[in-house]
Amino acid sequence: MDCLFCKIINGELPANKVYDDDLVVAFDDIAPKAPHHKLIVPKVHIATLNDLDKNHNPLLGHMIHTASVIAKDLGVAENGYRTIFNCNKDAGQVVFHIHLHLLAGRPMPGMTQ
Amino acid sequence: MDCLFCKIINGELPANKVYDDDLVVAFDDIAPKAPHHKLIVPKVHIATLNDLDKNHNPLLGHMIHTASVIAKDLGVAENGYRTIFNCNKDAGQVVFHIHLHLLAGRPMPGMTQ
Repeated sequence: MDCLFCKIINGELPANKVYDDDLVVAFDDIAPKAPHHKLIVPKVHIATLNDLDKNHNPLLGHMIHTASVIAKDLGVAENGYRTIFNCNKDAGQVVFHIHLHLLAGRPMPGMTQ
Repeated sequence: MDCLFCKIINGELPANKVYDDDLVVAFDDIAPKAPHHKLIVPKVHIATLNDLDKNHNPLLGHMIHTASVIAKDLGVAENGYRTIFNCNKDAGQVVFHIHLHLLAGRPMPGMTQ
């Protein structure tokens, strides 16, 4: 697998991990767009949201729930945070292993510029 | 319940629905930020992502999966789309009933400006 995130999951590449369990890992984005910018990544390789089927629903939900847990741990849950999935070119997906962006630590006006 | 989205779900307020099942409904955002801007909303009232527990995981996953289904129906899945949850003030959450934004139809640079 020539997948950046699979290599992080397998320990072949380093990352600053902030959360790890049987299903997902979370680590700092290397090009943060906010004071807190984490990526929540499933340990199973799924290229894009277009590759999801209903069997993935509990895993996807766990990713969202994990974002809320991390936000609470970071102390930003009350002020607020944003979670983003980008799928394919128009949304700027760069790594083709699905990942949930968690952004927090400053006001985030707009949604898509 | 003085909740805008509960009123849409209950039929007390109109919306241009594009998807409806036992768990979620999806409709056009009234202030679209992209050529396609849909909101996927659970029929159960949950105020923010901070109110999630693990029992909600299948529902949350179903919301993400539904976004991918709608994107395919719209013909935008290959070009791409973005899904966003905003939680609380810093992220600009306005309606306190969780909702997943689905944005598509144009390139979306950046993530948070």
